[in-house]
Amino acid sequence: MTRTIVASATREIIIGFDQPFCVIGERINPTGRKKLAAEMIEGNFDTVIKDALEQVAAGATMLDVNAGVTAVNPNETEPPLLVKTLEIVQGLVDVPLSIDSSVTAAIEAGLRVATGRPLVNSVTGEEEKLEAILPLCKKYDVPVVAISNDETGISMDPDVRFAVAKKIVERAADYGIKSHDIIVDPLVMPIGALGSAGQQVFALLRRLREELKVNTTCGLSNISFGLPHRHGINAGFIPMVIGAGMTSAIMNPCRPQEMEAVRAANVLNGTDPNCTNWIRTYRDHKPAEGGHAVAAAAPAGVGGGRRGGRAARAGAAARAE
Amino acid sequence: MTRTIVASATREIIIGFDQPFCVIGERINPTGRKKLAAEMIEGNFDTVIKDALEQVAAGATMLDVNAGVTAVNPNETEPPLLVKTLEIVQGLVDVPLSIDSSVTAAIEAGLRVATGRPLVNSVTGEEEKLEAILPLCKKYDVPVVAISNDETGISMDPDVRFAVAKKIVERAADYGIKSHDIIVDPLVMPIGALGSAGQQVFALLRRLREELKVNTTCGLSNISFGLPHRHGINAGFIPMVIGAGMTSAIMNPCRPQEMEAVRAANVLNGTDPNCTNWIRTYRDHKPAEGGHAVAAAAPAGVGGGRRGGRAARAGAAARAE
Repeated sequence: MTRTIVASATREIIIGFDQPFCVIGERINPTGRKKLAAEMIEGNFDTVIKDALEQVAAGATMLDVNAGVTAVNPNETEPPLLVKTLEIVQGLVDVPLSIDSSVTAAIEAGLRVATGRPLVNSVTGEEEKLEAILPLCKKYDVPVVAISNDETGISMDPDVRFAVAKKIVERAADYGIKSHDIIVDPLVMPIGALGSAGQQVFALLRRLREELKVNTTCGLSNISFGLPHRHGINAGFIPMVIGAGMTSAIMNPCRPQEMEAVRAANVLNGTDPNCTNWIRTYRDHKPAEGGHAVAAAAPAGVGGGRRGGRAARAGAAARAE
Repeated sequence: MTRTIVASATREIIIGFDQPFCVIGERINPTGRKKLAAEMIEGNFDTVIKDALEQVAAGATMLDVNAGVTAVNPNETEPPLLVKTLEIVQGLVDVPLSIDSSVTAAIEAGLRVATGRPLVNSVTGEEEKLEAILPLCKKYDVPVVAISNDETGISMDPDVRFAVAKKIVERAADYGIKSHDIIVDPLVMPIGALGSAGQQVFALLRRLREELKVNTTCGLSNISFGLPHRHGINAGFIPMVIGAGMTSAIMNPCRPQEMEAVRAANVLNGTDPNCTNWIRTYRDHKPAEGGHAVAAAAPAGVGGGRRGGRAARAGAAARAE
């Protein structure tokens, strides 16, 4: 059984097919957040602290930490800023962290100060990246996110993306890194631009699980890019990728609709034993709060025994087992 | 490609793997609805009419019609009542209907008056049922829901349920009924009573699609029986069964959360070309209306470009294709 272990100083998390879906909180990332970038440059970490606490309170399993505030001279500016951000976050919350940077020196600086067993985000199939990142993962004995693109870019052909993932796993093995420490990102395209993006990724996830036997992740909200009511698409995508074998995602845990989809999929996938987490979370849920009514609502709880007595029979049979 | 054709007098619907998920509205059914049963016995069809119009307005693809008001002498009372109900509904809405009864005489009476090509709901693997229902399906050239239980009840072993489904398909073939006119219900157990109920049904759906090549359905809300916030479990279950190959479900289309999950899964499964239906439905959706906030909300639309520029690259690549 594939098990990727990540840890903070005090808490260990297993990512695997038989584990609850691993929600990697995406918020601590100045990319596309000008205000956050400006604050971090000024040494103001108020938003970082707020985002860390809120994401953990909302149910994040891990937190991604990115300090890419500028494209100007990042090799010098990003390492100390990432170190500072990591130190603040790991002093504040006890979930494992993901060290997210496209700057190798920042990744290495982060690995030096991170406690526990962080995740490195990320390596690609590009030769330069493989040679820079894999030795660091070996040296610090940490798992890594492997993004299935290479020097030629992101292929529209899922077979090519699978081949790139396979190459990274094989190259990692050359460095003595086990496949259970590679978390493959098959790359999710926006469904509004590419109608087959969903079917592509579901098929890829099955192959990655069955053939490479690796854990997987993705930047989840990319699927809904450009569409109205993105949370609805995201919330439908989550159960589908979990059903196809995805074991983690980089996403916003502060969105209740998406987190509800994660919790429901855990119940349905058998990774919330006795529905304990679901019942604890939604015991006092008021039906009227969920969704916007477009028609008269049915009384709650009548759905189970509606159809010629069949549902009631199924329930009795299940309970009798 | 498996295609089950159902029709009203004026409208044809195809159920199939490459089609939008077929939502069979479950509301016109007095089982467990004492008030509705009392009304129908009195010849008052106000609720039937309201339920028919509301379900179609909410997006039902078809409507199930059941008139099982009493367990007392149903062989005499149910046929005329089902006929009356069917006539009212088919005079009111133009979606195809499903004739739902456990009384063979009522099914036959319904088939005599139904226009178009209705669905029969249902036959089981019980010998007596097979011999009663299959000749009717052949005579009237209509498709039928095949429930995978037999004289021994509902097996907890999914392999046995698959075998029962296979037996029904084979027996139907003996009567000259093609497998594309059999819609198998693999039977959904309540996940609160049987933790593996989800994984069982996903595996069964794959086998039914790949080995028997049949369309499938289920009484959807049974999965959440006994749990709090059932709509959340149902809404997570829908994308998972669609991803596993289910092509229809008997469910309540008046629940916005469940219907949103159907629409999202159609987008993601490639059966809502150009996201046309999604965009039309949610173009003016206000984010604040969905779900209940448990933490500060992120600004809408920023999720796509958050992660080290990767999402933006994927988007650009997809658009460049």
